[in-house]
Amino acid sequence: MTTVLVANRGEIALRVLRTCRELGLRTVAVYSTADAGSAAVRYADRAVCIGPGPARRSYNHIPAIIEAARMTGADMIHPGYGFLSENPDLAEVCAAEGITFVGPPAAVMERLGDKALARAAMVAAGLPLLPGSTEALDDPGDAAALAEEIGYPVIIKAAAGGGGRGMAVVRDSASFGDTYRRTRAGAKAVFGDSRVYVERYLDSARHVEVQVLCDAHGAGVHLGARDCSVQRRHQKLVEETPAPGLPAATVRAMGEAAVRGVLAAGYVGAGTVEFLVDGQGQFSFMEVNCRLQVEHPVTEMVTGLDLVAEQLRIAAGEPLGYHQDDVRLWGAAVECRINAEDPDRDFAPTPAVVEQFETPGGPFVRVDTHVASGYRIPPDYDSLLAKVVVWGADREAALRRMDRALSELRITGDRLATTTAFLRSVLAHPEFAAGTHDTALLDRMRVPATERSPA
Amino acid sequence: MTTVLVANRGEIALRVLRTCRELGLRTVAVYSTADAGSAAVRYADRAVCIGPGPARRSYNHIPAIIEAARMTGADMIHPGYGFLSENPDLAEVCAAEGITFVGPPAAVMERLGDKALARAAMVAAGLPLLPGSTEALDDPGDAAALAEEIGYPVIIKAAAGGGGRGMAVVRDSASFGDTYRRTRAGAKAVFGDSRVYVERYLDSARHVEVQVLCDAHGAGVHLGARDCSVQRRHQKLVEETPAPGLPAATVRAMGEAAVRGVLAAGYVGAGTVEFLVDGQGQFSFMEVNCRLQVEHPVTEMVTGLDLVAEQLRIAAGEPLGYHQDDVRLWGAAVECRINAEDPDRDFAPTPAVVEQFETPGGPFVRVDTHVASGYRIPPDYDSLLAKVVVWGADREAALRRMDRALSELRITGDRLATTTAFLRSVLAHPEFAAGTHDTALLDRMRVPATERSPA
Repeated sequence: MTTVLVANRGEIALRVLRTCRELGLRTVAVYSTADAGSAAVRYADRAVCIGPGPARRSYNHIPAIIEAARMTGADMIHPGYGFLSENPDLAEVCAAEGITFVGPPAAVMERLGDKALARAAMVAAGLPLLPGSTEALDDPGDAAALAEEIGYPVIIKAAAGGGGRGMAVVRDSASFGDTYRRTRAGAKAVFGDSRVYVERYLDSARHVEVQVLCDAHGAGVHLGARDCSVQRRHQKLVEETPAPGLPAATVRAMGEAAVRGVLAAGYVGAGTVEFLVDGQGQFSFMEVNCRLQVEHPVTEMVTGLDLVAEQLRIAAGEPLGYHQDDVRLWGAAVECRINAEDPDRDFAPTPAVVEQFETPGGPFVRVDTHVASGYRIPPDYDSLLAKVVVWGADREAALRRMDRALSELRITGDRLATTTAFLRSVLAHPEFAAGTHDTALLDRMRVPATERSPA
Repeated sequence: MTTVLVANRGEIALRVLRTCRELGLRTVAVYSTADAGSAAVRYADRAVCIGPGPARRSYNHIPAIIEAARMTGADMIHPGYGFLSENPDLAEVCAAEGITFVGPPAAVMERLGDKALARAAMVAAGLPLLPGSTEALDDPGDAAALAEEIGYPVIIKAAAGGGGRGMAVVRDSASFGDTYRRTRAGAKAVFGDSRVYVERYLDSARHVEVQVLCDAHGAGVHLGARDCSVQRRHQKLVEETPAPGLPAATVRAMGEAAVRGVLAAGYVGAGTVEFLVDGQGQFSFMEVNCRLQVEHPVTEMVTGLDLVAEQLRIAAGEPLGYHQDDVRLWGAAVECRINAEDPDRDFAPTPAVVEQFETPGGPFVRVDTHVASGYRIPPDYDSLLAKVVVWGADREAALRRMDRALSELRITGDRLATTTAFLRSVLAHPEFAAGTHDTALLDRMRVPATERSPA
């Protein structure tokens, strides 16, 4: 019998465990001392403490994870998202240990995880890219010359970056040199890799990504496009599918390009190909995320697929068993990320004790959360409390339902603030409601700082 | 602006209020003193106390409901299910008061609510019926002669009965006379109407019902068939759609018959036509339920429709706006009713305080409930605590998911018992798993009485 170790925490650990239970698989949760007694720990068949709170000593500590797998006889490791999910080393160690890693092969992850290499691979596969370098730029002079050629504004990105970190926009040649040096130094410090590349920066663009599934036998499908343009400093807050306002032909072209690109790269598993779409509807490849995304539930809601179940099937070597034409997309789905952050204090995290935690219910509402009343938010990790996901026959119905669902969400606690009310104001914004917003929406909103209400 | 008064309590009051909020309608909850501080009271824009706990003095008391509507300026009344939902008097008073009743016209409800008249109407519309009387049998001799002609076993049903009450099976002529007199006396006592009729009783049959929607302009559609064969004393415990093992042609024929029957009767609104299906797959009309059913969420999950929103649209006079061919049925959905009842004590209700109440979450799981930790179950009403509903790409996936969802449900309290574990044993029963069960499944299960675990 297969035993799956979930190398993660929070809502995604619980999410993965749920599917494992449905599939009749044995499960192992790993946890840091900060997460003892968490929902995942209680849910799994077995739980192993892998170290103290800081992630580098537990969730990011490969030897501890592997040791937990050995102790429990786990033959599969699901990495969730974040932490080690895109770390080729874990995939490689798993392979060496005879453990099935639920994700693409280490070499593929390595290539696609390097943004410069990924750009080169996608150019080779014929995907459209924004003007920029297809390799790392180690010389300041070369970099500045390329920026000039592309035309300002440009964005400098760490090749090893991701998750919205390690990038900087440059608006004129005067500030290029400084920003280039700072970004390289930052990349070296954060990712241990100073390589950066440069590409054109779009002030007004949409972030649209394509969910792909590829089996180990060379077959791949896409599951439509998600719009994740509501971002704060490159962190997604609201995600939806289908992408509003994108013509079906564009979505099809993006989907086909995404599948072509990842199959050319030897991809296996669930992955996401991120694109920027400009005001004219032209899309350009941005990056590949070699893992399950936080926002995968919206795709589940319109396709009827359980993406974790698909990941596990693919990892077990099963063929997809369906073709692109079999993929049905029905209705619209939206996800809001509820974070323990204070929008009035520049979204500072508010680690606190959750006194009251009431989640919405009723038709076509899904809540993925590891939180319950009495939960103490550890300061060690990101501040995601819950994902509220809704489905509707169309976008309008889904948005009405989301507002209703958020109105039912009740999260209170001393010194605890959440993004709920802020997200409702985003949903109510005329640009968002019309689906004409772009990634700069939150900058334009300039929400006035209001008095923070106690508790 | 429309104001909707919800003349009900518990999960269905909250269910209706949620849709009203999504549609931007003002809402009024009514409540008995036993339900002060209930979820619906907190959810609605306004709440009016309409009397003490016993339903006849509050939820069944038409003048109190109408007075609450007057006080709050409500121009629509949604009756939910149970209580006054099939009471033609409320519909008639509403009409007289200029309030829109969300349901069929009083005259239609009166005709279809009388089981003998309903049988006659459906015979006229060409629906297949089990052999039996098409009018009330007031003479014991006539009744016995008819039973003889039909052949035993027969069932004697109160014309005014419903919800599993007011019926008795007779297996031989020797006991017919006694049972006939007892059923008449009981019907007189409970429903104030002694009329009964007789029809053939099927020992092995499936309870399959068709959801219909009819607008006020003569258009009607059906939304597939629900199998509700898992019953305990005619009370449904598990419901699902599609009905397992029924050929598509049979479902289509039942659906068409159902729509034909209700349209012939002048039906307007959401309704359910119940059929018995025998071992040969032959279906026979049983009765029409002139209201939203407890089990409507399974239909919502496979159609993507919000049935309460459809009811409100229809009540407002809007045309359906779609045809039978537009109705899409996708995947399979199952509902389990979680009752505060003790399966080991013959399902005796256990009114108690709910100490811990944790509901399942994750993909394709819906929970409709009015309960939260600390809820005190009033002894005055039925014992429904929650409806757990799941969707799956097929029945097998849905059943796996339901078992997972039920495994997450945590309801504890001193002297509180629930049907959760019992339902899981039903789901695991080979007959149910194979979809070959019938209404006698629970009798055959003869669950051995086990020691009741404290709390």
